[in-house]
Order: sequence, then C-alpha cells, then structure tokens
Amino acid sequence: MTKVAVFMGSASDEDTVRPCTEVLDSLGISYLFTVSSAHRTPERTERLVTKLEAEGCQVFICAAGMAAHLAGAVAARTQKPVIGIPVAASALGGMDALLATVQMPPGFPVATVALDKAGARNAAWLAAQILALADPALSQRLAAARAKMKADAEKAGEELEARYRK
Amino acid sequence: MTKVAVFMGSASDEDTVRPCTEVLDSLGISYLFTVSSAHRTPERTERLVTKLEAEGCQVFICAAGMAAHLAGAVAARTQKPVIGIPVAASALGGMDALLATVQMPPGFPVATVALDKAGARNAAWLAAQILALADPALSQRLAAARAKMKADAEKAGEELEARYRK
Amino acid sequence: MTKVAVFMGSASDEDTVRPCTEVLDSLGISYLFTVSSAHRTPERTERLVTKLEAEGCQVFICAAGMAAHLAGAVAARTQKPVIGIPVAASALGGMDALLATVQMPPGFPVATVALDKAGARNAAWLAAQILALADPALSQRLAAARAKMKADAEKAGEELEARYRK
Amino acid sequence: MTKVAVFMGSASDEDTVRPCTEVLDSLGISYLFTVSSAHRTPERTERLVTKLEAEGCQVFICAAGMAAHLAGAVAARTQKPVIGIPVAASALGGMDALLATVQMPPGFPVATVALDKAGARNAAWLAAQILALADPALSQRLAAARAKMKADAEKAGEELEARYRK
Amino acid sequence: MTKVAVFMGSASDEDTVRPCTEVLDSLGISYLFTVSSAHRTPERTERLVTKLEAEGCQVFICAAGMAAHLAGAVAARTQKPVIGIPVAASALGGMDALLATVQMPPGFPVATVALDKAGARNAAWLAAQILALADPALSQRLAAARAKMKADAEKAGEELEARYRK
Amino acid sequence: MTKVAVFMGSASDEDTVRPCTEVLDSLGISYLFTVSSAHRTPERTERLVTKLEAEGCQVFICAAGMAAHLAGAVAARTQKPVIGIPVAASALGGMDALLATVQMPPGFPVATVALDKAGARNAAWLAAQILALADPALSQRLAAARAKMKADAEKAGEELEARYRK
Amino acid sequence: MTKVAVFMGSASDEDTVRPCTEVLDSLGISYLFTVSSAHRTPERTERLVTKLEAEGCQVFICAAGMAAHLAGAVAARTQKPVIGIPVAASALGGMDALLATVQMPPGFPVATVALDKAGARNAAWLAAQILALADPALSQRLAAARAKMKADAEKAGEELEARYRK
Amino acid sequence: MTKVAVFMGSASDEDTVRPCTEVLDSLGISYLFTVSSAHRTPERTERLVTKLEAEGCQVFICAAGMAAHLAGAVAARTQKPVIGIPVAASALGGMDALLATVQMPPGFPVATVALDKAGARNAAWLAAQILALADPALSQRLAAARAKMKADAEKAGEELEARYRK
Repeated sequence: MTKVAVFMGSASDEDTVRPCTEVLDSLGISYLFTVSSAHRTPERTERLVTKLEAEGCQVFICAAGMAAHLAGAVAARTQKPVIGIPVAASALGGMDALLATVQMPPGFPVATVALDKAGARNAAWLAAQILALADPALSQRLAAARAKMKADAEKAGEELEARYRK
Repeated sequence: MTKVAVFMGSASDEDTVRPCTEVLDSLGISYLFTVSSAHRTPERTERLVTKLEAEGCQVFICAAGMAAHLAGAVAARTQKPVIGIPVAASALGGMDALLATVQMPPGFPVATVALDKAGARNAAWLAAQILALADPALSQRLAAARAKMKADAEKAGEELEARYRK
Repeated sequence: MTKVAVFMGSASDEDTVRPCTEVLDSLGISYLFTVSSAHRTPERTERLVTKLEAEGCQVFICAAGMAAHLAGAVAARTQKPVIGIPVAASALGGMDALLATVQMPPGFPVATVALDKAGARNAAWLAAQILALADPALSQRLAAARAKMKADAEKAGEELEARYRK
Repeated sequence: MTKVAVFMGSASDEDTVRPCTEVLDSLGISYLFTVSSAHRTPERTERLVTKLEAEGCQVFICAAGMAAHLAGAVAARTQKPVIGIPVAASALGGMDALLATVQMPPGFPVATVALDKAGARNAAWLAAQILALADPALSQRLAAARAKMKADAEKAGEELEARYRK
Repeated sequence: MTKVAVFMGSASDEDTVRPCTEVLDSLGISYLFTVSSAHRTPERTERLVTKLEAEGCQVFICAAGMAAHLAGAVAARTQKPVIGIPVAASALGGMDALLATVQMPPGFPVATVALDKAGARNAAWLAAQILALADPALSQRLAAARAKMKADAEKAGEELEARYRK
Repeated sequence: MTKVAVFMGSASDEDTVRPCTEVLDSLGISYLFTVSSAHRTPERTERLVTKLEAEGCQVFICAAGMAAHLAGAVAARTQKPVIGIPVAASALGGMDALLATVQMPPGFPVATVALDKAGARNAAWLAAQILALADPALSQRLAAARAKMKADAEKAGEELEARYRK
Repeated sequence: MTKVAVFMGSASDEDTVRPCTEVLDSLGISYLFTVSSAHRTPERTERLVTKLEAEGCQVFICAAGMAAHLAGAVAARTQKPVIGIPVAASALGGMDALLATVQMPPGFPVATVALDKAGARNAAWLAAQILALADPALSQRLAAARAKMKADAEKAGEELEARYRK
Repeated sequence: MTKVAVFMGSASDEDTVRPCTEVLDSLGISYLFTVSSAHRTPERTERLVTKLEAEGCQVFICAAGMAAHLAGAVAARTQKPVIGIPVAASALGGMDALLATVQMPPGFPVATVALDKAGARNAAWLAAQILALADPALSQRLAAARAKMKADAEKAGEELEARYRK
C-alpha cells in the first residue's frame, strides 16, 4: 500500500527530488513518485489526490519551482498532511518557490521544508516522522537512521580534528 | 452580459480591490465582483470560471495575497486572459504575492500588474485595453479617459510650477 | 494527556501565537503552551522536550522571531514532527525568522508554516491533520471544521456579489 | 498583417526571447521581432509603436533587463495591451527587471509575465489568449495546443510512475 | 536662469521632494520644480527637457516611485547629468524604485542617490557639487554649508557626551 | 578609565542605542557615548579613535543606519575589536545598514550584531564577554546577569503554562 | 592634467572596472586609475583625494564590492562629485555593494550607477556628462558617441527584423 | 593550549573555512578545528564547548550555512565571545545563513562577520584582535600583519597606476 505520494510539478525536477525517494527507500516506506502539475494537469492532480487518499495514502509530498502552487493545490483537496519542497528553478534563487509554498492561508497549511535537494531529503524525513507516530517498526528504523547520522557526523569531526592537529 | 470577472481570495481585501471596480464602472464595463479562494473553495472557483466563460466572460481578474494561487488556479481552467493583482497581506511587503502570481510556468500565463491599489486600478485598465481591441466604443471611452489623465497630470505640473515660481 | 506542545521563544509573542491555541481548543486537542528559548534556556527546552515526548506528546509547535532557532533546537532532540511558526519581530519583515526556520539541514526537518498569525493558525491545523491520521474522531471534527470554512467562504462570496450586483 | 510586435531592449537578449517567437510561430500568429531601446533609441521606439499600431498591431511584447523601462515606454504610447518579459541580465537575478516592469503607475499597465525563457513563452501564450478573444480559428489552435501540453504532462507522469514502480 | 530642473513623477511626492528644493534654496541655486510623468505625460517630459536644456539648464533631478522610469526617460533625451531620487511608494519599501532608477544600461547613466527625503537632500547637494565645478562663488557657499554641517555634528557629539558623562 | 566607546552616526539614533548603554551601566562597565559620523566628521572620528585607544579603550561599538560606514571607518583605524549595530533608518528595513556593516573585507572585521535595540543590547553583552576574558570580577557579574536572564525566562514559561493550564 | 580619478577597492576588480577606463579613453578624458582601499589604506585614500583635488581633478569614480565604503570615504573628503560603481563580489549578487554605496546620509551624496561592467561604463559616461558642462569640445565628442550608439542600436534592430522577416 | 575553537556545521564547508585556520596559523594562534552540528550532534557540540572552555579556550568561531544555528547554539552555552561565519550553501546566496547568524536575541550575541571565505579570514582576524587585548606579543604580530596588508595594498595601487599611466 502506498503510504506516501511524491508529486513534482515538472519532469525536469527529477534529479532534485530523487534524494527524497532515496530516503524513503532507505526507510522502507512505500511511495508513488509521479509528475502532476497544478496548472497543466489540475484534473489529474485532483484525481490522483482523491484516488490515493482513498487507497490509504497518508502523506503528500509536492516539489515545485517558480510560482509553486502544487503543494497548495493538493492541500486544498486533502485533509492529509502535505509537505512542500520549494525548487530553485528561476534566476530568483528559489525565493519565488519558497514564498509561494510557505505562505498558505489559514486552514490549508503546507509543511514547508528547505529548498532543493536538502529539502527533498527532509520531506522524506518529515513524512517518516509523521508515519512513525503510528508505526513502531518505522519509528525504530528512523531512530537507527538518526543514530547513524549522528555517528557519521561525530566521526567526521574526529577525522578533521586529527588532520589539523599539530 | 458580464465581460469581466473580478475575484479576490479573501473578503478582507475588498478595500484594496475596490479601485478596480471603480475604474470598470467609469468605463462602463460590466463585471461580477466576488470572493473565491483557490484553497478554501477550489470547486466554487472552478465552477464560477466554467459558468462565467460559458456566459461570455472575456477577462478574469484575480486579487490575492500571501501564496497568491488564485490567479494561477483560474489560469489553469480557462483560455481567457487572466490578470493577477498581488496584495501585500503579510509582513513580507507583498513580495510573496508578487512572486506567487507572476512566476507562472509556460502555457499558463498570468498578466501580473502592480501591488495593491495601484495594481487594482491597472487590472481594470488592462482589461479595458484587451476588451477595446474588439469594441470601438470602449476604445473611444478609454482614449478619452487617458486624455483626461494626461490633462490632469499636465495641470498638476503647471500648478506646482506656479506655486514654486519666484 | 498532552498531544501537542506549543513553545514560543519569547513571552512577547503571546498575541501572535494565541490563534494557534484557539484552533487547537476549537478542535478539542489537548496542549501545553509555554515559553522556552533556544538560547536563554536551552536546558529547559531540552528537558521539556524529553519529558513531554515521554508523556506521549506527538507534535511540537515552535514560534520564534529573528534568528529563530527554537524549532531547530527542538527538532534536534526529538523524533516527533516539529512545526515552526516564523514570527516577524524585527525590521526585516520576518524574512530572518522564515529562513532560520525553514532551511534546516538533512535529517532534521522543521515543517514550516506561514509568518505570524496566519502561520499560528496553520500550525494548529497541520498538527490536527497529523494527529487525525490515527484519530478518526479528530478526523471527523477536522472535516467538519473545513466544511464550515468552505461554507463561510462561499457565503462571503455570495454576499459580496449581491452587494455589487446592479 | 502583423498582429504582435516583439521588442527587446538589447540584441544580446535574442536567445532568451526566441522561445516567444517560437510559440507565436507554432500558433500561426504573425509578428515583427526587433530591437528597440527605451533609452538608446526612444524616437525609434515611439515611431515603431505609432506605425505598428496604425498598421493593425494588436499586442506589444517587450523584453528587457536591468532597469527594464521598455515595456513602460511602449505602454505610455499605445492603448493596445503591452506584455512585459523581465530578463535577468545583472547579478541581481532579475529582481531589478521584474520590479521595473510590473510596478507601473495607474493607467499604464504592463501585463508582466515570468522571468526569462519561461516568461518569453508565456508572453506569446498571453498574446494568443488576447487575440483569440476575437479570432475563433486561433482560439481552436490555442485549445489544441493546451490539450497537447496536458497530454504531454500526463504522459510524463505515467512514464515516471512506471520507472519508479516496484 | 534655471540651472536645475526638479521633476517628480506624481504630485503626491511633493512632501518627499521638498527637502531637495530647500537645499537648493539655501545654496542660492535657481530651479524649476514641476510634475511630469514618464508614462502619463511623456510628450510633456520630452518637451520640458528640450526646452530647459535649450535655456541653459545644467542638471536634471527626477524623483519617482514604483517602476521609477522618470529619470531614465529624461536621461534618454538629454546629455546633461541626470540625478535620480528613488521614492518608497509601495509596500516593497522602495526597492522597486531603487532598482528601476540605478540599473540603467550603458551610455545613459542616472546618478542615483538615497531613497526618499535623505535622497532628495542629496540630489540637491550633488547638483550643487556639479555646478560648483564651474562656479567659484557656489563652490564657496557649498564649502561653508559643509563646514556648518561638520560643526553641527561635532557639537551634537559634545552635547551627547556631556549628558552621558558620569 | 573608559573601557568601551559607543559611537553613533547620527544623534537621531539615541533612543535606539540607549539600551546598549543601559546594559553597560548594569554591568558596571565605563564607557563614552558620543556622536561621530564617518562622513560628516571623519577627522573627529579618527581623532577620537586614536585618543581613546591611547587612553586604554578596549572595545569600540558603532551604531549607524543606511550606508552604515561608521563601524568600518573605525575598524580601519584601530586594532581593537569593533562591534557594529545596524540601525533600520530607511524604508529598506535595515537591510542596507546590515549589509554595509557585516560585509567587511579581509583584515578589517566588524563584529556585527542584530538590528536596532536588540542589537544595541547585544553589542553591550558582546563587549562585556570580550572584556571579561581578562577581568574575573566582570566575568562573575556577567555570569550572574545571564543566570538572572535564564531564571526570568523560566519563570515567564511557568507563568504562561499556569495561565493556559486547564 | 588628470580630470578624473578612478579608484577601486581591490586589485581583483580590475577586469570589472576596465570598461570605465575604456570609455574615458574613447572620449579623450585624462584619468588616473589606481587601487585604494577605504579600510586597508585609509590614509592613502585621503592623501590621494587631497593631492588629486589640488591638481585639478574634477570627478572621482570609486568601484568597490561587499560593504563598499570607498565611494563614501572619498565623498567625505572632497567637494567634487563622487561616482560609485557597486561591484558584485560576494554570494549576495551585489545587493550589499549597491546599498552600501547609494544610501549615503544627507550632505555627502555618491552618484551611484549600475552594478559591475554596465556601471563601470556608466560611471565614465556620467563623468563625461559632468565635465562636458564646461568643455564644449568634450560635449561634441560625447554627442557624437551617443549618436553612434543610437545608430548602432537602430542598425541592430533592422538586422534582426530582416533575419526574422518571413 | 587551545585558545580558539573553530567549528563548522558540515564537513563539506572545509574549503570555505580553511582561510580562517590559515590566518590563525600565520599569527601563531593555537586552535582546534572540527565539525560539530547544532542539529545532528547537539550533545557533542555542548560537550565540546564545556570541555574547551574548561581547558582555557577564549574564543569560539562557528561556520554554518542555511538555517545556520551553530553559532547560536554555542553562544547559548558559553560566556566566551562567539564569532559566526555565515556560509552560502543554498540557492539563496547566503542570505539565510547571514540572518540566522546575526539576528540573535538580547543576551546571546554572535559576532557575525562576512559571508564565506572573506568572513572566514575575518573571523580569525577578529579572534586575534580579541586575544591581543591581553597578549602584547600577539598584538605586535597583529600590528605587523596589518602593516604588511597596508604595504601590499599600496604597492598594488602603485603598480596599477604605472600600468595605466600614459
């Protein structure tokens, strides 16, 4: 069963969003990854949201650039949590996508994460944190993954110290 | 017959948008002025667009603040020109609404005008310029209105000169 | 049992954050509302997170302005979802708090919502959406609240139309 | 007969603006594509606007970077709709051209579209939407082109789903 | 003979620009102060520039807000130095007017000064510095005015020191 | 003996800077508070820096708005640590003063703190932290002040919790 | 005799500033081109300004990046017009240098031109416009250069039209 | 004995931060250079701060990008001066890291320096200026280094003048 839907507004964002699916894979979370645009295919977006929600999808992740409406369009049509990844896809450095994603009106929040690949990863981590509230096995895998991140970071610190020690 | 639809995302923007309807009134252009939200009432927005387009509406004007998706949501559902008025409705000075309105993806333009009341007026002027392409009488009223604006500006210049002349 | 913790970095933000607790109240969600600073009281923040998580707290909401580190400091210490409300508390219009809240590094997401009161409300709505995944009764209350929002927005639209109809 | 005039402020923007003429070509819309500067050749700009308007030009498209005055200079001299494409031509990421294009004073709107190539395409789409109001054949070609965009986007979605399905 | 022309794009900026004329008055520099818009009255602007230049005007000062094209429009039509005062006249805090004034293309500089009243004063000081190159009497008045500014600033420093000394 | 010099670029910033002197007073640190401008009185600034450094001044604090050069001008003339307080004194929300203060070239750092009153306080706290490195008594007073801040913050948290407890 | 001094804050900006000296060369204006820093060599900057002014230098051009204080430091020490070229030399896209150059306090204007090479050229054009006020021969060379720019721009327009004509 | 601790939030910033350690090396200042994250390894950060402070560390330097909390996290746990280097590590050009570093709340200052490598160098210079207050030998080495910087800058000026002299 698909627990997470990962939408992106344009096929050209695949490389930016792939870190999201990689984190989901590493945590054993099932997902659907597809392209659906708020503007070019609003009916498809609406149809997918309704269908996926009916099938048990718990979290929607939406990545989009420029006037990034995708996450908001999904949020308008589901009661499930929606996570937005702003993508820097114009000369404005992603400020357009960030503001268009985060500044949602009351009642229709989008849980906005960082820009680009860092945000793609964090969308997956946030989805996992949400799903783990009701999934003890996932909660353990998440805890293990965070422990490994910590251990890696500590090791990186020690290696650097050793290299610069005089 | 309603030639222009004026939507705003929130009833709280009425004062900001009224200059738009005042210009339309002054040019004798029929319009519908209503509230419809891309997020709270997406079905209503979609229904209104379809109905109005079928009834002969030629231009859609949409005013919204924050992650201003309204104009884009309308543009996704009509082939008629859509004009967007970004409204400064958060501490970010309207930069959020401006970018969320103007940075539309290829195929689904929003004709974006200035922020707030200046933009509200210009949305009406732009709608009039578009409608005047096929309406010689409106074209003449528009020309007269612009001539009056010029005359007023020239007069203001002369009055100021007189006051400061020594 | 406290399901949601609402932290703010400074007691001076109480008016900005109160709409969050009002939404939580309206949905019947239990919460703790307190002040804890990432910088002035890091130990208290850490202690509260650990204690609340142990007692079953599911979602942390953090509101802060300027170099808004509070949500990140909490995210570093819990595996539960953390929601960040950026508060405009300097001359920079909240851009400082927004960027300091949303641009979290991989592994430690903060689900960022809009600035100020709109964001305060949305933090509560987002928390409710997350909790509703495992709470059918809350899910129904949430659906009813959203239906009411829609109905109110539709009614506002009709009233405006009536006033401007000629 | 030339229905659309495409001006750019500097010959160096040709690659950025060409997607505009490509969309116009694909829709069978006749146009003039030229260079004319608001500052270096204001008389030429004025002369061209007057001549083209007299010859039946319906829409003016203007692309410019930096203190992008071209669209405004054209808007000051014609009653026809003027569309502005802001070009990112300095280290400021196009924010200069965007604000200089969109923030026009009341009475002289510029229909501003997105930055750079995305905006160049949308200027053509917007011009087509305006012209189609009085041109049923163009309206049909436009509808067909939008249908194809939708179909392409749906297909891209399905292909991506297939690649990631497990 | 009018040595300096002070134009503003809108009569509503009179209070912001008056400090400019006050400094010119204090230095005994003759000027014309008027309203002329790049968009509403482009012919008047052009006519005034040509006439004033022919009558011996040496420096043009232009104040405008939003998509502030006035200084650029004047710079396109005269070889005399043009000074631009960006006016904060929208929710964007004057960033629109600043970028639209300063980012001129090669060959047509606008000597841009600070925003609003500080810039209005500095436009006058800059005009005086330019005129003083060929006017020894003005050069002396300018030197005296600067000496007085320094003396006033030194005195303010001493008074503050005295108040806080313990 | 004056350990800290507090300069501001304009007498009009006194209210913004006073919190700095209040923190210095509360910690028993002697200071000189004066006005000196990088532009209006560069010789006075230079003379004061030389004189104060010779008399044992250890830290320079400089507050300025707009193109805030004062801290940099002082940093160019002393080897003592220089702390910069950016003041929001134009429509740009202090972004001008912040960037003009912090982006110093290699070799001439300005220790930049937050904008306006928050920064004024922090300039004093930072100066105290620097002086305390060689002053055990001050170090103790500083520790006590920080302990009090913590206690106050904890108390504010408890009071808020009590008010909202149900 | 040196009529124009061209200072840059860092030798690394030579390529950015060279277009300025090329325009001065093309107009036959004598200049001194050197490096002098507001922070690293304030005494040299002061000494050069005093010496050059005494020798008849009429205009100072200053190029600097980051917290670009150079133009302001020169403006504080001469009554001659000072032109500032902001250089984009950090990740902030030149916004730092632009604001640090243009937002000067009353009495000490810097005539700010565009960022980077476009601004370097315009600094030279502006200096020429200022010098031409008292130099009829230069005024004629300037007029000829502007006429050539116009002719080149018109020719570029015609060539483009020819290429796209069908 | 380690006088200065240099932390960075991510090992990927090593090249950006190395100029800091190079300046410290050149001045003979002992330091520890390591990786420690405010979010991934908060306990390690806290432990290192406590241990280093106990061992006599006088100044903490922290480099971080995005929602750069590292310097603030350290400042919350030590009374020693903390210097923050904002790193441009996202599409936002470092504005995120700058605001997240500098806008600290009262009582917990971070002495913020310029972005990236320029800031890395200045963090070291600032640390040296602070340490030199109580270390006459370091004060002399610092004075010598600054004298050499000045001499190098003067020489660069003279060489450029020679190359462009005609």
